[in-house]
Amino acid sequence: MTAENFRTIWLDADDPSVVKIIDQRLLPHEYKLQDLRSWQDAETAIADMYVRGAPLIGATAAWGLYLAALENPASAAMRAAAERLLAARPTAVNLRWAVERIMGVADTHGSGELAAAIRQDAQAICDEDIEISRGIGEHGVTLLEEIAARKPGEPVNVLTHCNAGALATINYGTATAPVYIGQQRGIDVHVWVDETRPRNQGSQLTAWELAESSVPHTLVVDNAGGHLMQHGLVDIVIVGTDRTTRCGDVANKIGTYLKALAAFDNDIPFYVGLPSTTIDWRSCDGVAEIPIEERDPTEVSHVAGVSAGKRITVDTTARNTPVSNYAFDVTPARLVTGLITERGICPASEKGLLGLFPEMRDRS
Amino acid sequence: MTAENFRTIWLDADDPSVVKIIDQRLLPHEYKLQDLRSWQDAETAIADMYVRGAPLIGATAAWGLYLAALENPASAAMRAAAERLLAARPTAVNLRWAVERIMGVADTHGSGELAAAIRQDAQAICDEDIEISRGIGEHGVTLLEEIAARKPGEPVNVLTHCNAGALATINYGTATAPVYIGQQRGIDVHVWVDETRPRNQGSQLTAWELAESSVPHTLVVDNAGGHLMQHGLVDIVIVGTDRTTRCGDVANKIGTYLKALAAFDNDIPFYVGLPSTTIDWRSCDGVAEIPIEERDPTEVSHVAGVSAGKRITVDTTARNTPVSNYAFDVTPARLVTGLITERGICPASEKGLLGLFPEMRDRS
Repeated sequence: MTAENFRTIWLDADDPSVVKIIDQRLLPHEYKLQDLRSWQDAETAIADMYVRGAPLIGATAAWGLYLAALENPASAAMRAAAERLLAARPTAVNLRWAVERIMGVADTHGSGELAAAIRQDAQAICDEDIEISRGIGEHGVTLLEEIAARKPGEPVNVLTHCNAGALATINYGTATAPVYIGQQRGIDVHVWVDETRPRNQGSQLTAWELAESSVPHTLVVDNAGGHLMQHGLVDIVIVGTDRTTRCGDVANKIGTYLKALAAFDNDIPFYVGLPSTTIDWRSCDGVAEIPIEERDPTEVSHVAGVSAGKRITVDTTARNTPVSNYAFDVTPARLVTGLITERGICPASEKGLLGLFPEMRDRS
Repeated sequence: MTAENFRTIWLDADDPSVVKIIDQRLLPHEYKLQDLRSWQDAETAIADMYVRGAPLIGATAAWGLYLAALENPASAAMRAAAERLLAARPTAVNLRWAVERIMGVADTHGSGELAAAIRQDAQAICDEDIEISRGIGEHGVTLLEEIAARKPGEPVNVLTHCNAGALATINYGTATAPVYIGQQRGIDVHVWVDETRPRNQGSQLTAWELAESSVPHTLVVDNAGGHLMQHGLVDIVIVGTDRTTRCGDVANKIGTYLKALAAFDNDIPFYVGLPSTTIDWRSCDGVAEIPIEERDPTEVSHVAGVSAGKRITVDTTARNTPVSNYAFDVTPARLVTGLITERGICPASEKGLLGLFPEMRDRS
């Protein structure tokens, strides 16, 4: 978020045997920090979704291995902890990347210096992630500056879907990074926050983190974006992505494609903020090639909230209503105005991406 | 719905001083009939949304005036009841139409025969509404028959948004009428039901009435339709409308426009079922001319459901999250494949509509 020193995970300044996280399951109703005092605590935090978002999951595993090294730096113990952390969210690519990186540190350091070495690398993983987010923000903010210059005295209205925010990373986020950097530079930014059914990451996470950073924002249902765009109330759409193909097709939270269609129909720029690590250089046609996860139907039928101060989950449907719950959709590159990466902004095309990442030319 | 004898409002067969309705506030969790024994009961049913949907609101007011005439057929008493019923939902056009029609009956009948005369006309209002819905259904079902002929042995997949179903009318509905008539004719129909945030008319009403009629259906979040269409899982979209302009622009529940965009992008037919009474012959450009109601933000922030057998409303947002709640959007005629009316199917254009309703040529 805006505050330079905000982080979603950090080592306790007074007690270096404690890693601090936000228990994101309780947001937006309660802001509660959680102490991680062992690798098992880190495992629980990942598996039970105290933390979510690929970069933050990876960082939590890295810090979990630091806690493991504090307890027992012996090679067999470290390997056992690594295996358990990897299994906490089996499909998370960043989790494997972070665990393998830290275990590489373990392989080259003796027991006596291991915890200190891992601490340094876990910190580096977090710092590097912030640098990537800040890079996305600094490139993306030029888009907001151009809009602000065209309408002096009026806010720049950004629409975003889901949470590709600070809470999913270490700070700044991906889609939200241009917004936070823009705020730091004094741009008057207002964000339309899609609720993001079924899991409500917009209303529960994005709205919360924007409020924490004092960024003006308004929550709307996912159905509202087209109407807002028809009436000139959106200047730019910026979303995140789970996977972008080398040809520029963008897989993101279900419903992103509908917003891209509405932006295209109303001549509103539609951008995707992404760290280059989420580019899938081996695929091109996202609609045909990217498998779309179907998740538990109760995510649709049941809604969590607060009543009389108590957290309660209610069933909104008739008993036995059949439900499908597709988690992502693919926005074809033809609807994407541009991709905002840590290296710069490029067209959503193979040529555009290879222009920024020429070293990937042979990775298809 | 499919059953020939289903109605959303009817006179008790054993006691002609009682009008029966379904308390739709309790759906889908509870199916409870409500007795209306006075015009005040009818007023409450309308104002407190036991009943909703323009045709059903009008019919409820008509039956309310029947109950008023039973109690006191004197002219002053009838006028007082009519005023109160009109005020129950001040912006409902059908409510005024039905009350004025019934008061016309009151003006031409003596006290002794008034209740019987109103009973006959209230019944006629209901019968006529069913005929209109059935007309929409019989014209619209030809579209489903064409699709069924192209894919023998496979279901015809219809996607609908909100509830333009039997529950909003007396029977059959508007958007759902082709589905129910299709089922009667043995067509294998499956309906994708949009949840329809923020009021969840899809998950709470459409899913319920389709289940009651044994029409196969699947609930999805509003975000899912684009993905379904990209993957060939939708054959046709049929929605209702609150107001359609003489040029074919369609105002309907917020989010309809996004589904029309997705249908257009995927070459899927997008139809609107409508009684001709909802055509606004005086307006053309719907986006510019139709005012869009903004409703209570708590409809977005709060969600109703059931927990441990109890009906509970939970707040899903952070305290003080700003919310906008636009209730409708406008789908431009260029995205609408056709309009299904009680007189037939026509293009969504002035020429198309006047072809079916030539008597309206001078109403602009």
